[in-house]
Amino acid sequence: MTERPNGRRPTLEDVARRAGVSKSTVSRVINREPRVREEVARRTRKAIAELGYVPNQAARSLVTRRNNAVAVVVTEPQNRLFVDPYFDCLLRGIRQELVHQGAQPVLLFIEEPDDYPRVGNFLGGGHVDGALLFSLRADDPLPAMVEQTGLPAIFGGRPVSGSGHRGHSYTYVDADNRGGAREAVRYLVSQGRRHIATITGPLNQASAIDRLDGYRDVLLDSPPQLIAEGDFTLQGGAAAMAQLLDRCPDLDAVFIASDLMASGALKLLRERGRSVPEDVAVVGFDDLTPIAEATDPPLTTVHQDIEGMGRLMAQLLFNRTPERPAPGDAGHPLSRVVTPTRLVVRESA
Amino acid sequence: MTERPNGRRPTLEDVARRAGVSKSTVSRVINREPRVREEVARRTRKAIAELGYVPNQAARSLVTRRNNAVAVVVTEPQNRLFVDPYFDCLLRGIRQELVHQGAQPVLLFIEEPDDYPRVGNFLGGGHVDGALLFSLRADDPLPAMVEQTGLPAIFGGRPVSGSGHRGHSYTYVDADNRGGAREAVRYLVSQGRRHIATITGPLNQASAIDRLDGYRDVLLDSPPQLIAEGDFTLQGGAAAMAQLLDRCPDLDAVFIASDLMASGALKLLRERGRSVPEDVAVVGFDDLTPIAEATDPPLTTVHQDIEGMGRLMAQLLFNRTPERPAPGDAGHPLSRVVTPTRLVVRESA
Repeated sequence: MTERPNGRRPTLEDVARRAGVSKSTVSRVINREPRVREEVARRTRKAIAELGYVPNQAARSLVTRRNNAVAVVVTEPQNRLFVDPYFDCLLRGIRQELVHQGAQPVLLFIEEPDDYPRVGNFLGGGHVDGALLFSLRADDPLPAMVEQTGLPAIFGGRPVSGSGHRGHSYTYVDADNRGGAREAVRYLVSQGRRHIATITGPLNQASAIDRLDGYRDVLLDSPPQLIAEGDFTLQGGAAAMAQLLDRCPDLDAVFIASDLMASGALKLLRERGRSVPEDVAVVGFDDLTPIAEATDPPLTTVHQDIEGMGRLMAQLLFNRTPERPAPGDAGHPLSRVVTPTRLVVRESA
Repeated sequence: MTERPNGRRPTLEDVARRAGVSKSTVSRVINREPRVREEVARRTRKAIAELGYVPNQAARSLVTRRNNAVAVVVTEPQNRLFVDPYFDCLLRGIRQELVHQGAQPVLLFIEEPDDYPRVGNFLGGGHVDGALLFSLRADDPLPAMVEQTGLPAIFGGRPVSGSGHRGHSYTYVDADNRGGAREAVRYLVSQGRRHIATITGPLNQASAIDRLDGYRDVLLDSPPQLIAEGDFTLQGGAAAMAQLLDRCPDLDAVFIASDLMASGALKLLRERGRSVPEDVAVVGFDDLTPIAEATDPPLTTVHQDIEGMGRLMAQLLFNRTPERPAPGDAGHPLSRVVTPTRLVVRESA
């Protein structure tokens, strides 16, 4: 219940009185300074929320120049976010860590070329303390724009070469996409599969390129008709699976670069009367449990810790020691933190 | 391809040269001033993106004090957004209009009580020109917080009484929830249905209350066991349907306050061996076509123009004339703009 003492704007004093703490304690809680007991901090935050108290920004700036806000810039159509649980998971990890640090996540979408200058304006406008960025494609102007703003930034996923990062020195967090793909394909080989196809992501994205490279590491001489390009969507996975079956009716396994595409492919295989894993073994990538456990049959897939990568990005932004520190490439302007992947065997392979 | 002339930070001159326009034209495009031909504006924005040009904020402030950014505050768990296409639709409408006005949408989530002071700080920090807010529950401190910031704000949905808006003067955009519900229930009556149940949304939300009121307008004496409270989720719809069937095995129709709940209820009815519409007629609310057209059978439902409501909120924020202007309640501090609803008959009733 919002209560406004006598209808006037609530003050720091009102909060202190309501929470039963000193004014300097309220100030310390607002500025996220240490040395406040968690119980006291919680009581104070409760009073702030109940009174609807908004600290005076000018007064706060004397204490700290931080905006206590971090931009999360997503270069995807907004509706892609709504159908792909990958982003849900990633954003959950980011949010968890930012909120833990007292920083407000500020979500910005880039859906079309016109969005770049507007987002660049906002990033350069002194509204946020840093930026987290994803899904960089070749020729993406974002890295150069962000460098101009002088904001600290962490990238999610390896930038594709040519994505304007040359001469810049960024840190990026990535899963071991190539190693994970290699493990998946080696497993299919070990199961006696002989005609192993692959459905890739869009090949202007580094994660898609790296997973295809992992497939090729194991199957050096795989003919091009066993490789179909998908788009990381369910429909795209089904379409690519149909293409592969038409081109190579005798394929007996397929490594698919995302769980969402794999679930589309499983549906298509069922429609074509191919049983999984008997006729065709299927391995996905992501291990998004709401998908991988719900498919029929449950999906064997490469696990990556998506939520953990989100947390790690936010930790690195504030120069906190990551849980799993890793050295950057020597002599390379990009430093990277690669998180491990592992195969989770269920029933589809 | 990002090209940086001689590796230095690109200037307004660089953009003008690349686009083949004057410096003042570049400046007018950046500040969204009128009197620039669309073709010239597009060419200039392309040059800005290609060069990765970020205007100097201090210089811009001489021209305009606007941040060219609007906060969109969503009081829902982030993952709710990922499973409910309602928000996707609403945000698409908002984005469309904000971008049209040259304002960057800045998405902020409130998931837990601790988030209020942090979001309040950001809103009060001079980073945005206005705020759009939704899903206000009883006792929500947001309206009072936003008023203190002095930001213009538009609300999506009628604030529940007690939600801290007393004494404030807000404009809100809402669908005709009560009228739509009335039309749905009258239709069921006209089809000869005699035991018409309802599944409501969470009754601390105005849209849920209003839809239940519409049901009661028609069925004045409906006994309480024909009313089950849901939570606007698919699972909640199925659970409420099970409850209703256990309590009233002879029910022959149900009006359900959202399409997502209706799709859960249809699944449950199928499991219980009740055919739709023969045994039980079902009417939903929303007309989210990806859901309503995909259910088995296709869903008869109350249509509301969700994307249009999003656009309208953004238009009202900038005091543009809405497409469908409506007068506020005389003598009431809240003024409202109500958009019409209409029944779309498919096969479930």
